[in-house]
Amino acid sequence: MRIGNLGGRLVLVDPDSEHATDVERASDGRFGAHPQAVFERWAEFVQWAADVDPSAGEPFDPARLGPPVPRPPQVFGIGLNYRDHAEEAGLELPEEPMVFTKFPSSVTGPYAEVRLPSDRCDYEVELVVVIGQEGHAISADRAWDHVAGLTVGQDLSERAVQFRGKPPQFSMGKSYPGFSPVGPVLVTPEEFADRDRLAIGCSSGEEVLQDGTTADMVFPVADLIARLSAIVRLLPGDLIFTGTPAGVGAVRKPRRYLSRGEVIVSTIEGIGQLRTTLG
Amino acid sequence: MRIGNLGGRLVLVDPDSEHATDVERASDGRFGAHPQAVFERWAEFVQWAADVDPSAGEPFDPARLGPPVPRPPQVFGIGLNYRDHAEEAGLELPEEPMVFTKFPSSVTGPYAEVRLPSDRCDYEVELVVVIGQEGHAISADRAWDHVAGLTVGQDLSERAVQFRGKPPQFSMGKSYPGFSPVGPVLVTPEEFADRDRLAIGCSSGEEVLQDGTTADMVFPVADLIARLSAIVRLLPGDLIFTGTPAGVGAVRKPRRYLSRGEVIVSTIEGIGQLRTTLG
Repeated sequence: MRIGNLGGRLVLVDPDSEHATDVERASDGRFGAHPQAVFERWAEFVQWAADVDPSAGEPFDPARLGPPVPRPPQVFGIGLNYRDHAEEAGLELPEEPMVFTKFPSSVTGPYAEVRLPSDRCDYEVELVVVIGQEGHAISADRAWDHVAGLTVGQDLSERAVQFRGKPPQFSMGKSYPGFSPVGPVLVTPEEFADRDRLAIGCSSGEEVLQDGTTADMVFPVADLIARLSAIVRLLPGDLIFTGTPAGVGAVRKPRRYLSRGEVIVSTIEGIGQLRTTLG
Repeated sequence: MRIGNLGGRLVLVDPDSEHATDVERASDGRFGAHPQAVFERWAEFVQWAADVDPSAGEPFDPARLGPPVPRPPQVFGIGLNYRDHAEEAGLELPEEPMVFTKFPSSVTGPYAEVRLPSDRCDYEVELVVVIGQEGHAISADRAWDHVAGLTVGQDLSERAVQFRGKPPQFSMGKSYPGFSPVGPVLVTPEEFADRDRLAIGCSSGEEVLQDGTTADMVFPVADLIARLSAIVRLLPGDLIFTGTPAGVGAVRKPRRYLSRGEVIVSTIEGIGQLRTTLG
């Protein structure tokens, strides 16, 4: 099942045929139009949506897709969660997840134009987990029961702000307007043959910037959910940006920052692509 | 003007007479009952509420007050923002605000019972700013125009989690359930004779734990809003925990952590008190 935000309205999407079904209309108002509200009634929604065939819906223009989770109540970012990225950064693997936030006003859609505030901005393609069921102290073996689905994210980062001061300011450097593109759709977990081993990458034109697999995570999705929720109560519609594989610009020699006019394409197997135009 | 959350409903409060006016009923439904929704229409609300006299409302039990901002879209926490606290911690004054988040699921009401997850938990009384008007790149001289009001907050902190790992994990150590009590009411800025110089303190029984003034802030409220919004877009209903004065338990000799059964009273001049029972 693929869920999207089409011009601010919740839709079920068939990406192959580019057809979509408007949820509020198809459910006769049982579920509202706002894409964020559905997570409060996720189990009920999924049960209803199982009988809907979005390929029988209306044709739509993918360029109108907004963020499938436009106003998450909480956004968790995880630093150094891929072995190959920790290695390229010359840093030891963390013993506990390194957590920051991307403030929710930074969320934008899959085909957004994002303004670069400086010449020190960097890309980080990330698998993003969407929470569908509230919980505290969730065990790892129950963790996937709390997941609504997966989507693609870009953890855009202004490195000068991120590394200024003591301690460094991860949450600020990663929260300029538009710095959290997500989409193009939310894909429910049962759609994946192996949800813990997905090809993940990022490119600019012909240049491959990142090319990895989510199987390289230090703390896989279920483990992250257990460790985060051991402390913080997770809420429906929360996002977890699960960290990025090797290849980021700040640790390359020479450094490779983003430029105005570039289009960054972020891809995860089985989900789709973000196309982020930098302005 | 004093705004509260009485059993989940938005009210205008007269604390002296302990009378309150239910906003949804008094406005014939023009404004909804949910305390969080009002910040989206703050200017319109304040204009309407100016003609309401809450002392003519219904008597109420203050123990039923919940958090005046129950589900803020974003919560900013500021570290080391009082000169006397930086001094007691032996740390240099920051050149830019040191920012973390308190994840919003940690918000609770002014008379809540909060479970201590360990014997390393600490108190920090803080002035909390509530944003009433969205903005990005707000200048300091316009900053107060974006403020809905002020309230009292406790930035409860589990120090073992906060200082584990590199960089330290402020946002996690400060976000256990109930670790962000706020209230008892939101007070609009015009109620204060000098909104930048308020007595602020915290006690446990007869023991004075903190006793300071908000005039000691390194970055006063207007400056904080300017510096935060230079990067992050502020949203209606956001909270800014503006830092704590000297006296916190972790830097005392010997250390002075919180115990089960204690009742922490957090007070700010012109706003009121939080009474937080630790369980």
